[in-house]
Amino acid sequence: MTRVFTDTVLAADIAEGLARVKTLFESQLTSPFPAVNDLCRHVERYRGKMLRPTLVLVSGLAFTRETESLRSEHSIIAATVEMIHMATLVHDDVLDDAQVRRRGETVNFLRGNEAAVMLGDYLISNAFHLCSRAHDPALNLRLGEVTNTLCEGELVQLSRRHDLSLDENTYFEIVRRKTAVLVGASCELGAQLAGASTEDVVAMRQFGEHLGVAFQIQDDLLDLLGDEATVGKSILRDLEKGKLTLPMILHIARTHGAPRARALEAIEAKDSVALRDALTASGSIDAARAKAVAIVEEAKRGLPQTQRSHARELLLELADRIVARDA
Amino acid sequence: MTRVFTDTVLAADIAEGLARVKTLFESQLTSPFPAVNDLCRHVERYRGKMLRPTLVLVSGLAFTRETESLRSEHSIIAATVEMIHMATLVHDDVLDDAQVRRRGETVNFLRGNEAAVMLGDYLISNAFHLCSRAHDPALNLRLGEVTNTLCEGELVQLSRRHDLSLDENTYFEIVRRKTAVLVGASCELGAQLAGASTEDVVAMRQFGEHLGVAFQIQDDLLDLLGDEATVGKSILRDLEKGKLTLPMILHIARTHGAPRARALEAIEAKDSVALRDALTASGSIDAARAKAVAIVEEAKRGLPQTQRSHARELLLELADRIVARDA
Repeated sequence: MTRVFTDTVLAADIAEGLARVKTLFESQLTSPFPAVNDLCRHVERYRGKMLRPTLVLVSGLAFTRETESLRSEHSIIAATVEMIHMATLVHDDVLDDAQVRRRGETVNFLRGNEAAVMLGDYLISNAFHLCSRAHDPALNLRLGEVTNTLCEGELVQLSRRHDLSLDENTYFEIVRRKTAVLVGASCELGAQLAGASTEDVVAMRQFGEHLGVAFQIQDDLLDLLGDEATVGKSILRDLEKGKLTLPMILHIARTHGAPRARALEAIEAKDSVALRDALTASGSIDAARAKAVAIVEEAKRGLPQTQRSHARELLLELADRIVARDA
Repeated sequence: MTRVFTDTVLAADIAEGLARVKTLFESQLTSPFPAVNDLCRHVERYRGKMLRPTLVLVSGLAFTRETESLRSEHSIIAATVEMIHMATLVHDDVLDDAQVRRRGETVNFLRGNEAAVMLGDYLISNAFHLCSRAHDPALNLRLGEVTNTLCEGELVQLSRRHDLSLDENTYFEIVRRKTAVLVGASCELGAQLAGASTEDVVAMRQFGEHLGVAFQIQDDLLDLLGDEATVGKSILRDLEKGKLTLPMILHIARTHGAPRARALEAIEAKDSVALRDALTASGSIDAARAKAVAIVEEAKRGLPQTQRSHARELLLELADRIVARDA
């Protein structure tokens, strides 16, 4: 798969595209008020993998002739999806009472929940304003639909916190809404703006949604198995806050009596070693990991043929990286 | 001014318009998840005066011939501005740790801050989605600008909490952003959608912004002087949370030594009687009230001539009611 990076034209196209996205992101969030700018500069430190904007650009390039360039709307949508994502991170940290994100302190920890709530609102508002700058009502409508669904997923998840009866189906329903729709829309809109056929646009959305679900399962595994210094945020946070993760849901479904109780006690005691042992013994960790890999394979199988084959290969590689990452 | 209500055609137009707005508002917030719907039905109880949608409709009617009707976009924008307003109420209650709103318990008090944060996000997202249903990119762009400004105002206000050096100019800068721009946009867009001239659209925005500022000063006065049962929310809340209100800013500017200290001690002790006495003695309450009345008069003087004169008279009456209200 290293072959992809020997396509220097593609690599340059992506690097240029991401640079434009960063510029757009920063200029959109420039305010006359230092108090506002300070908070925005803090949030920009959260920007890590830039997975969603990368998917917009690569999905766009996949359906663009090598002699042609991406449209300016690609940059707008790429920066918009990243800004929506940032808003969810800022508000998620309030919901989770999180102190650390990307090895730095969270806005809520540094400046209080009030500032974090309002900063998240400012990011959501700017995301919609930025998207409107594309002057295409269909984009606004689609992204509004996506964020409606995303918030619904968060609200349903909240209503089921500490609910041990949460089953696998409901878990996937929540994750599809909370995480997968935005990743799906990134691939979908990237391809659509490049003029892909309706059929390919739908296939790209499905590809992205599968990636989003696999991404969430990998996050669940990192919450359990990750090294705090590498992941850059607190471990066991999801479980402590009563969010059932896939390994835990599988463990509850597979065990009764003492083994189930041991895992719940380990969460209570914040004993990550005991929890890992319990979930390893029940095979729940392996089963969750296998599920994530299977979903990535399904995504790759469904990836349509594209105009530019190296971009397609990069999409396949990005899919693999989702379940290989340790941060 | 009772003459307005003898214009039964106008009254019927407004009542019909508001009924359409309510229907649109409720249908937009219908989710397949009971957990989401429960929260939305709770928020609909906050809907009180419907000032902003009323201003959209009346501003629209003012520039519409009596033989013609409002456009469907008027209902969309009216419901959108109300939804944006509801989102700010829900998040403001989180910021203010408020327990009571419109004589009912707040979402944060009933369901926790997490649910209130996410419900507010759901309302913002749905507001933008609803607005996109008008398929007019200029509307999205304008409302995105409005909510960016609104959030900036909130962030600046937050950064100045408990800051006794906050002066009148900064207060008005915050209030213009936090409260007035949305009211201004309601009048502006109502008129614009009805085909008013650019000059009249600008004048309508200014009219609305003045109303918004006067509205906030009246809110400040009610926080100090209001009867809890009538206002329907906690009194002295703003001051307790370190938000300087106009009467308090004027008092700080007018007093030194003991009279200033007495007011600050009264806030600390939640002694509303002592606080009223101190601010009455310094003339700060009368001065704030006079300011609100002067701003309403300025608004009324700037109101342009319109197509339908009874609608214009109603706008003048709505302006007067802003400073006459006790809830």
